[in-house]
Amino acid sequence: MAASALLRSRVRRPSYLNKLTKAENLIDLFPHNSYIGWSGFTGVGYPKKVPTALADHVEKNGLEGKLKYNLFVGASSGAETENRWARLNMIERRSPHQVGKEIAKGINNGNIKFFDKHLSMFPVDLMYGWYTRDRPNNKIDVAIIEASAITEEGGIIPGASVGASPELIQMADKIVIEVNTAAPSFEGLHDITMTDLPPNRKPYLIMAPEDRIGTPYIPVDPEKVVAVVESDYPDQTQPNSPEDECSQKIASNLIEFLKHEVNHGRLPQNLLPIQSGIGNIANAVVGGLSKGGADFKNLKVWTEVLQDSFLDLFDSGNLDFATATSIRFSPDGFKRFYDGWQDYAPKLLLRSQQVSNSPEIIRRLGVIGMNTPVEVDIYAHANSTCVMGSRMLNGLGGSADFLRSSKYSIMHTPSTRPSKTDPTGVSCIVPMCTHVDQTEHDLDVVVTEQGLADVRGLSPRERARVIIDKCSHPDYKPILQDYFDRAEFECLRKGMGHEPHLLFQAFNMHKNLAEKGTMKIDSWE
Amino acid sequence: MAASALLRSRVRRPSYLNKLTKAENLIDLFPHNSYIGWSGFTGVGYPKKVPTALADHVEKNGLEGKLKYNLFVGASSGAETENRWARLNMIERRSPHQVGKEIAKGINNGNIKFFDKHLSMFPVDLMYGWYTRDRPNNKIDVAIIEASAITEEGGIIPGASVGASPELIQMADKIVIEVNTAAPSFEGLHDITMTDLPPNRKPYLIMAPEDRIGTPYIPVDPEKVVAVVESDYPDQTQPNSPEDECSQKIASNLIEFLKHEVNHGRLPQNLLPIQSGIGNIANAVVGGLSKGGADFKNLKVWTEVLQDSFLDLFDSGNLDFATATSIRFSPDGFKRFYDGWQDYAPKLLLRSQQVSNSPEIIRRLGVIGMNTPVEVDIYAHANSTCVMGSRMLNGLGGSADFLRSSKYSIMHTPSTRPSKTDPTGVSCIVPMCTHVDQTEHDLDVVVTEQGLADVRGLSPRERARVIIDKCSHPDYKPILQDYFDRAEFECLRKGMGHEPHLLFQAFNMHKNLAEKGTMKIDSWE
Repeated sequence: MAASALLRSRVRRPSYLNKLTKAENLIDLFPHNSYIGWSGFTGVGYPKKVPTALADHVEKNGLEGKLKYNLFVGASSGAETENRWARLNMIERRSPHQVGKEIAKGINNGNIKFFDKHLSMFPVDLMYGWYTRDRPNNKIDVAIIEASAITEEGGIIPGASVGASPELIQMADKIVIEVNTAAPSFEGLHDITMTDLPPNRKPYLIMAPEDRIGTPYIPVDPEKVVAVVESDYPDQTQPNSPEDECSQKIASNLIEFLKHEVNHGRLPQNLLPIQSGIGNIANAVVGGLSKGGADFKNLKVWTEVLQDSFLDLFDSGNLDFATATSIRFSPDGFKRFYDGWQDYAPKLLLRSQQVSNSPEIIRRLGVIGMNTPVEVDIYAHANSTCVMGSRMLNGLGGSADFLRSSKYSIMHTPSTRPSKTDPTGVSCIVPMCTHVDQTEHDLDVVVTEQGLADVRGLSPRERARVIIDKCSHPDYKPILQDYFDRAEFECLRKGMGHEPHLLFQAFNMHKNLAEKGTMKIDSWE
Repeated sequence: MAASALLRSRVRRPSYLNKLTKAENLIDLFPHNSYIGWSGFTGVGYPKKVPTALADHVEKNGLEGKLKYNLFVGASSGAETENRWARLNMIERRSPHQVGKEIAKGINNGNIKFFDKHLSMFPVDLMYGWYTRDRPNNKIDVAIIEASAITEEGGIIPGASVGASPELIQMADKIVIEVNTAAPSFEGLHDITMTDLPPNRKPYLIMAPEDRIGTPYIPVDPEKVVAVVESDYPDQTQPNSPEDECSQKIASNLIEFLKHEVNHGRLPQNLLPIQSGIGNIANAVVGGLSKGGADFKNLKVWTEVLQDSFLDLFDSGNLDFATATSIRFSPDGFKRFYDGWQDYAPKLLLRSQQVSNSPEIIRRLGVIGMNTPVEVDIYAHANSTCVMGSRMLNGLGGSADFLRSSKYSIMHTPSTRPSKTDPTGVSCIVPMCTHVDQTEHDLDVVVTEQGLADVRGLSPRERARVIIDKCSHPDYKPILQDYFDRAEFECLRKGMGHEPHLLFQAFNMHKNLAEKGTMKIDSWE
């Protein structure tokens, strides 16, 4: 097959051009029950042509439920690939994170065996053979990796994400490369490290977000590359969720706190590297840092994923450097990024998720970690994944990588969310989390639009008082205070009052929600 | 005050001898509400004279409840000091770990404000000023540190533990040194690193348990040393809990698993560095490794605390090197250790708890981490601290430092414990943990005397099946299976079946225990 001039300009390894083919010729590489890895992270840098060809094949031949795969991707992939695979019942097993209605549906109706794992740990556990332990050689069958260019050595220059691609490549028997010519080459934007296993692992010698310790491409054994496919459309991202009044209040409470910490000498004037997640609260916080009022200059970012608001932060002149494993901009954001490449690229580095989320580095740098939970309890445990203890949303992601190891471990959430019948029917502050992903030993600060609870160094009973007082919504404050008072009285009386609970009523607010559509219970009797 | 010849042989810094005094002269250094740090970890290396003098002072002058302190110790201290302080109501606040009936009583009746924290994190959070944030200079008032000798520079050579002493010394305005002449000098046995704060933190350049990266003593600013006291009795340790049939069965299941992993190429023949806790199961595991049958040679240990069984492992010839933050031998064990000093010392290194429990190093080395919980649930969450969700036992300790970051994260527990009226009245495998310290994202293996559940890479529903099948006691297997079957049916039906729970009945076994003395419920109706 002849390569286009554009493709030839991207592929500097001539032998790879001999392996050029069309995705639909690769169906036989993927028998039922194969173990497959995809590149991609937070919906960017994922393979597009081969997954689509496989979905077409299933659809055309009525193979729904008959061609199923064990699918490993660093985090979420594209809606048009992963969601479609879920809809066509092509996913037997999936890890460690996902986004999309169809795949969440498949997970929660029992069709898809999903497990979520710390994103820093997933790639190394994969390398340990944890996820392939019933297979003869501990390997996965095929890795499909999107590249924005190929080096002379045959190395892969990823696009807008690195994710788990280095380890997927190390673990795969065969590699298929999709060279995406519909977006620019990202050459120079990556710092890639491969994974050695103990006892041969080395420290990550990173002392600041801008430090480079690897190569600008993912080294690949060229003999493992079985096919190269040209990919002709860019990542299908969505616009970012906008700030609203609530998220702005949360951001303002948080920025006030950071100022307080600077004033008391516990943070330098330019803070420490910031980690911020995805979503409107994260947007508002980063937005707040861009604006003059915040007064923080020379900021640096050490995070998992960058969204559009970071472009504003760059443009404000307050941000000196940012590093992540993925840039998930909106279509407009990508255009802005490509147009300003000369300015942005020297201040940006993409790393593997094992490095971006590395507890080693997060702790060393003293990161300020910020995340949004499903719910937080009065003792500062948090649920990041399972609604009502059972229904999976997206997965753990990097929340616990950052919240365990950050210098400042911050959970930000609205104090309430609407239920179907009550605009404040769900309290995000609850007596006891129905599922725990972050423990009381991991959180320093809880902040809502109501206020900020600084729980550092507090005993559980002190923590409960300050979280109820500062963070809970007025509709729920008396309910939560009553729970705590009763629990404290009962448990102290019994000599078990370290962390007082009414264990057999702890989920009554959730029960009320399930039965009556609101967590506003009449009484704890 | 004149120094004894023995004391002079230990203190090589002459100016310190001018500060020699008796403990009872130091009462005024400790006004009510002082912030105090003690050396010590797992009941060894703790100060003895000054805490005893303060307790005597309180007792003699009827000051119970009137002279109270905020007390920070790396982990547990001596029963005759800490427990006595608790009994005399001298402890206002305590962190991050404790052992002793009186202190647990004070914590659970509301007298003592206690918070437990990852032992790796406690010293650095202390340095951040988290625990002293209401004080003008973020400092603690006095650190009382036991030394086994003093260097020319005035540096402290600790005894059988390092713990949080380096950071307590860095954070203290004043330092009191107790030089213990009743035990030998431990000079040469320590590798000490001090703590820099971000953005100036450096990697721990440790690639193997025997690597030295620090000094053999804790550097001290001599002007901060306000007094030196001679201490004249050794650490008051207890005999170790003996193996029993149950713990031997657990150990045998575990060793079988390690052999299996070696055979499948996922572990080298000499394993990887082992972490083992305190208690009879840990003893049985280490005992099992000492015996010929296990067949593992050239072992290394990276752990928090060494108990007597490690002396057997050294003597077996199977152990090449061990490092920890504390050696908590029994009185007989210490005698054996001192008698064999020439043989043991070259194979042993004591580090600060921030290093021994460092996630950075634990992950790099690929440690095999093993711990005992209060309870584990069918989805592999574990409770390490709070009985019935509320009553504090000892604290989190290093359990989560190791279980989050180890290559193999293993929880070992008997499948049941006796209640007051039923020898198997408490199942250690429960539908839902009443308190979560280790999340489902952190555990690889659960093992009881019944069998071993390898949950790596399994979805929650797969995990539940294998944990119930392999680990639960026959008395509870049908009860747990019935819970799971009903929860699965209900949750899948509602499209929330990722991790099925009957949320409002999840603690019924615990309720039955509270009301009827056994977890054996008749039905989930």
